[in-house]
Amino acid sequence: MSSEVQDLTRLDRVIHEPARLGIMMVLHGAGEADFLYLQRECGLTQGNLSSHLARLEETGYVEIEKKFKGKFPMTVCRLSVKGKAAFDGYTEMLAAVLQVVRR
Amino acid sequence: MSSEVQDLTRLDRVIHEPARLGIMMVLHGAGEADFLYLQRECGLTQGNLSSHLARLEETGYVEIEKKFKGKFPMTVCRLSVKGKAAFDGYTEMLAAVLQVVRR
Repeated sequence: MSSEVQDLTRLDRVIHEPARLGIMMVLHGAGEADFLYLQRECGLTQGNLSSHLARLEETGYVEIEKKFKGKFPMTVCRLSVKGKAAFDGYTEMLAAVLQVVRR
Repeated sequence: MSSEVQDLTRLDRVIHEPARLGIMMVLHGAGEADFLYLQRECGLTQGNLSSHLARLEETGYVEIEKKFKGKFPMTVCRLSVKGKAAFDGYTEMLAAVLQVVRR
């Protein structure tokens, strides 16, 4: 078991934080999403969502584009290639953990 | 997807911390384990393991017994009934998250 347990220390903590994990899940599923949709899906306050998105953008996992839909400003978010790869690596590691637990 | 994503905010953060997740995994698999064995399996320093075990004991998830094996002091750790239930709930939630991601 040691190897899977010791792998946990390499778990990506940017993604491991539950609110950010939720954001990454929604973006992974939806391809892209605007701020209000993300806020509703994740059940986060505006301030919380903003700060977690900022962290994800800093890390290069999420790309954020501000644009207009007619007169209305929109903030569109999507996973970057780096973010998609990191998310896939993270979920593979979780799956390995669960397999050990169920053995 | 919203419900699984929003469930993430209820994820047990005592267990979610990677080092503590590793400790819980080892104790879940082994039934009980002494301090040195846990340290080796988890790849943690003595200080780190001590402080995470203290947190798990405080929360009532782990029971810690100090005893002697011949002349040698031993610290034996095991999951409590509460800890076992919390760990099962946590891993069920993780499994639900993975299922959503793979859908």
